[in-house]
Amino acid sequence: MNIDNRPHVFINVAMTADGKTDMTARQGAAISSPHDLARVDRLRAASDAIMVGGKTLLGEDPRLTIKSAELRAERHARRLPENPTKVGIVTKADLKPDSRFLNHGPARILIFTTTLTAPTQIELLRARGADVIVFDQPRVDLEWTLKNLKQNGVEKLMVEGGGTLNAELLRLRLVDEIYLYIAPLIFGGNTAPTFVEGEGLPRDQAISLRLINIKQDAVGGILLHYAVVD
Amino acid sequence: MNIDNRPHVFINVAMTADGKTDMTARQGAAISSPHDLARVDRLRAASDAIMVGGKTLLGEDPRLTIKSAELRAERHARRLPENPTKVGIVTKADLKPDSRFLNHGPARILIFTTTLTAPTQIELLRARGADVIVFDQPRVDLEWTLKNLKQNGVEKLMVEGGGTLNAELLRLRLVDEIYLYIAPLIFGGNTAPTFVEGEGLPRDQAISLRLINIKQDAVGGILLHYAVVD
Repeated sequence: MNIDNRPHVFINVAMTADGKTDMTARQGAAISSPHDLARVDRLRAASDAIMVGGKTLLGEDPRLTIKSAELRAERHARRLPENPTKVGIVTKADLKPDSRFLNHGPARILIFTTTLTAPTQIELLRARGADVIVFDQPRVDLEWTLKNLKQNGVEKLMVEGGGTLNAELLRLRLVDEIYLYIAPLIFGGNTAPTFVEGEGLPRDQAISLRLINIKQDAVGGILLHYAVVD
Repeated sequence: MNIDNRPHVFINVAMTADGKTDMTARQGAAISSPHDLARVDRLRAASDAIMVGGKTLLGEDPRLTIKSAELRAERHARRLPENPTKVGIVTKADLKPDSRFLNHGPARILIFTTTLTAPTQIELLRARGADVIVFDQPRVDLEWTLKNLKQNGVEKLMVEGGGTLNAELLRLRLVDEIYLYIAPLIFGGNTAPTFVEGEGLPRDQAISLRLINIKQDAVGGILLHYAVVD
């Protein structure tokens, strides 16, 4: 896909030293340091939209808003919306009407889903102020979605997981950069999630990265900034 | 377990940026750079013994010998065996008589196994020159094994995986250090192996690490050296 037809896309993720983004119980275990959470907040504030996949959306119900009042004020001064647009990619969009994703704002909300979502649920989502785009096919078309986001003014898109969405975006070569925070922790677990899941790539299609920068924080966390090599 | 009763234990592992130690197909995908392989060779040469778990032993059949003739000569000059002792931890030790692990040497070979290994197979292993220690219980007792290694002169033990053995050693608090090489690659795959597997730890028993050192190689690989915090 031509880069001119889609936003600049970057993944942000925090993992343990053993590559886990959560424990096997998947209750959203804390991984980032306070210092790193502030970095994530700045990344959000510098983005036009923030995207998450279905399991993250329904399982973690993230706010995806900017925590710092100062950063929100800066956006306001730049005539930007207080928060970036929230984008959910979810085959069956069974969000609850009182979910944080739908209610914590203010923010524009876009939900890309499929006909697996019941029409009554789509009405419910629209009644909560979300724009809902429904694909008449088994899965959301990510290339079409990115093109649509670009046409709607999204130049910089932050992807905050999970592993299935990340895998699909990487497989389709739709990711430009990755920010990877590695906490000095080990969770273990052969079913604990990692940040790129899916079926896995054959060796000759493995994604090559170019290390742009590396930083160490005071608590032994490491931030790796990679460019995805085409 | 008192550290005086066991060797100094360190794990060495190479993973991709998304935390994978192999692809889903598990055919031993190359992850380390040539520069990193030389580092691993030096670590081996500085160890008294090298330990691997059952899946690694039977699936990858590693040589575990020192590649550099120079490093072997150095060991010889220090009156050490040319190669460190090879240690296999394997519930059912169905190694083939012509396996690399048994035949590539010279090296002392210790196999810790259970009564799940058939007596004829144990005889076969002994006939190939391996010392075989058989536990009359479902799994090898790792604390007993480490104590036994220490009593047999192993002061420095290098563990080269896999994820099940690493997880068990970490859970039992038997690991002192971890060398973690992160290649600038993404493999993906929700069933691809990671370097700490097992059941996973509850949040309050997660292993804390202290970052000792960080190095970057010419190809964008990162070497993290951690101490395991008790």
